[in-house]
Amino acid sequence: MPKGTRDFGPDVMNKRNFILNTITKVFRKYGFRQIETPSLENLSVLMGKYGEEGDQLLFKVLNSGDYLKDVTDEDFEKGYKSLLPKITNKGLRYDLTVPLARFVVMNRNEISFPFKRYQIQPVWRADKPQRGRYREFLQCDADIIGTSSLLCEMEIVQMMAEVMSELGIAGFKIRMNHRKILGSMAKSDGLQNQENLFAVIIDKMDKIGWDGVSKELLKIGFTPDSLSKFKQIFSGELDKEDLRKKLSPMLDRDGANGLDDIFTVFEMLKKSRGNPDEQDFKWHLQFDPSLARGLSYYTGIIFEVEIEGVTVGSVSGGGRYDDLTGIFGLPDVAATGFSFGIDRLYDALEELKVFPDFAIEGHNILIVHFDEETFNYGLEVLWRLRKNQKLNTRGVSIEMYPDQSRLTKQMAYANRNPIRFTIIIGSEEMKSGKLTLKDMITGDQQSLSEDEIIDYLSQKRV
Amino acid sequence: MPKGTRDFGPDVMNKRNFILNTITKVFRKYGFRQIETPSLENLSVLMGKYGEEGDQLLFKVLNSGDYLKDVTDEDFEKGYKSLLPKITNKGLRYDLTVPLARFVVMNRNEISFPFKRYQIQPVWRADKPQRGRYREFLQCDADIIGTSSLLCEMEIVQMMAEVMSELGIAGFKIRMNHRKILGSMAKSDGLQNQENLFAVIIDKMDKIGWDGVSKELLKIGFTPDSLSKFKQIFSGELDKEDLRKKLSPMLDRDGANGLDDIFTVFEMLKKSRGNPDEQDFKWHLQFDPSLARGLSYYTGIIFEVEIEGVTVGSVSGGGRYDDLTGIFGLPDVAATGFSFGIDRLYDALEELKVFPDFAIEGHNILIVHFDEETFNYGLEVLWRLRKNQKLNTRGVSIEMYPDQSRLTKQMAYANRNPIRFTIIIGSEEMKSGKLTLKDMITGDQQSLSEDEIIDYLSQKRV
Repeated sequence: MPKGTRDFGPDVMNKRNFILNTITKVFRKYGFRQIETPSLENLSVLMGKYGEEGDQLLFKVLNSGDYLKDVTDEDFEKGYKSLLPKITNKGLRYDLTVPLARFVVMNRNEISFPFKRYQIQPVWRADKPQRGRYREFLQCDADIIGTSSLLCEMEIVQMMAEVMSELGIAGFKIRMNHRKILGSMAKSDGLQNQENLFAVIIDKMDKIGWDGVSKELLKIGFTPDSLSKFKQIFSGELDKEDLRKKLSPMLDRDGANGLDDIFTVFEMLKKSRGNPDEQDFKWHLQFDPSLARGLSYYTGIIFEVEIEGVTVGSVSGGGRYDDLTGIFGLPDVAATGFSFGIDRLYDALEELKVFPDFAIEGHNILIVHFDEETFNYGLEVLWRLRKNQKLNTRGVSIEMYPDQSRLTKQMAYANRNPIRFTIIIGSEEMKSGKLTLKDMITGDQQSLSEDEIIDYLSQKRV
Repeated sequence: MPKGTRDFGPDVMNKRNFILNTITKVFRKYGFRQIETPSLENLSVLMGKYGEEGDQLLFKVLNSGDYLKDVTDEDFEKGYKSLLPKITNKGLRYDLTVPLARFVVMNRNEISFPFKRYQIQPVWRADKPQRGRYREFLQCDADIIGTSSLLCEMEIVQMMAEVMSELGIAGFKIRMNHRKILGSMAKSDGLQNQENLFAVIIDKMDKIGWDGVSKELLKIGFTPDSLSKFKQIFSGELDKEDLRKKLSPMLDRDGANGLDDIFTVFEMLKKSRGNPDEQDFKWHLQFDPSLARGLSYYTGIIFEVEIEGVTVGSVSGGGRYDDLTGIFGLPDVAATGFSFGIDRLYDALEELKVFPDFAIEGHNILIVHFDEETFNYGLEVLWRLRKNQKLNTRGVSIEMYPDQSRLTKQMAYANRNPIRFTIIIGSEEMKSGKLTLKDMITGDQQSLSEDEIIDYLSQKRV
């Protein structure tokens, strides 16, 4: 297999699907609609959108047929970079955001704005593979295009919290900041056009700490006086109101509006919990001026979610970016969005051991038999159970071991798949009509009629 | 966008998801487990598996970085075919069957056989794009590896029928044949090693009719005497038992076993219906000796499903292929499988107009408001409804128009998305607590309390 790619076997898929279904359910509940775009995009769409490094990380697909037919010796001599446009015009998408921008611009006359879309598809990056970094991985995005209402920001926080709680994660932290606050702070020291660099440096806080950050800020011209103010603001020791007081004097108009937006969203969220006095909410929402997020295209409120007690890093993040479609000639379209990191969520749920039983068990019933007679009897049980409406409504799976094999082999099949229950049919069972239902986890066996088995199983599981 | 690729907007995705969810539900019910493999495979895995034409239709991905670094002028002069292995070692998968074979061989020590897997992922082919043929499309496969039990064949027919019926398709036909019957017929005229060519010619019956087929058979050496026997067998005028009588004398041992297998599967299916006298079953299962299926790797019973009254061609097909993993060094592994054509099913359901309402409607509730006061009131309604367990269990989606816009704009948003119900909140509604629930399809309006709305909506939809 190509390095940086993975196979997902059935056990892993069950757990991944639990995560994906949970996220999808929440996206849909909040009114987001699914789209899919092709894996292959024209390189003219992809190139130049992710910086020079990004261009190099794009997987490029050779033109079909004789890809050399328009290539001269001279082209060849010029080297691999200038040869590229002659032999390739398509690439694998690098993220879901640029394809979204292309989709919105191409379909702007059919779309009813605000356009709330979610998209769950793989992306490819020719990155150096390493632990937790893959060359092909799933992205899971939701965005709202065409409105600057703060309802979007509020609902993103709600969705983040709802997904965490539906996944069974009790301890998590949502950090929130506003890009214009950071930009304003950068400018407060008299430095112009350093806003992005400022954000990039602040973004390293987790890795290099305040000491490293302050050194880099000094190097690009910030004064020790400003740094001592920043230090307190980034310390994490101040509460919301104190932060407001300390920040306000250094903010320009945009920064002040950003700060107001943060507080508006906090107020709306408080109301939505139905308990205005509840401190900092159940989900530990936090205003964190040191949250920067690397990407340069954010322009407004930004978010990040971390799970307590695990070392996987942030599992969700996003923010407002108000000129995405500008790159394709449709300027001034307000947008905000966020995404979940499936691989990190998976690792976190494993580490916390909170995957629910049904995501681990996988399948439900295996009918086990001993000889031709019990096989044939089992077939009829199989057919009746598969037609049963109660079991069908619950999505119960029922299969029979297809070969006449030893009991141990059939039970091993149930254990390894894994399948939760076996129905064992021997000659005794055939005579009495009472079948043996075995719970493969607890080891419990019961002697039950078909109807009793149906009742038991249709109450047992959701 | 690259030619032969497509965007899927929300309306199309809703309908595609209805089809995919239906198929997934049936696969899982019968005990199949999902796997996923990477889109990118090493070219050493893909090349040589689909014939020379297939090799050319593979999308090949340029090596990252300086892909010319080991290329000499001489390599370049030799032309595009011999340059290929120097500049590319990965490609996009062409189908899900070769990746499955690789997966099984790589994981043979972890897999508990029989291995029942399903896989729903895109594949890529650099085919000439034309109506109904795409360069990127979804395949939807289920296979059972490691058993030659006829239970597999029987359950494949059941699954095909169950998917059709769950999709709301009443009129369909499942045709069944056995490759060894065809092979035996080919040999019955004294011709050896022509079995595959015979199957390829018979496969053209739909396109060129018996006249065309018989001409081609004569050309490769079949006698007019054999052809007149074949004609009757392929005519479609004989019932199962007559076919058995006419075929038996021309079959060798393998062919005769194949014919017995067909009849065994028919018998099992009859029993499974619980009505042994029912003629040819509800799903019009048919033994059709002219069914050949193009692919050369089939070795046993083969199937194909067509929908009556539409012109989309076969929507599902498959068969037994007993040496798939041999190409990767694991010989003698019995296997059988089948797949659904999502694009053709989609076209068929459109043509028959049988997509259910919920696949067309998409989303459920939009809260509509007039000014800041009703917006704020609406927010609280939104939050209460989203927390309601009855609505959550039903997967009801609830959203509010995020901007304070004109009523017509908000209603247009509901109509175009489409959203089935609007809850309209004006000053009247705020005062009385009775909200206006409007059904956007029928146009009916009711004045209801929040609790009444919850009751109404939780009974309305599944």
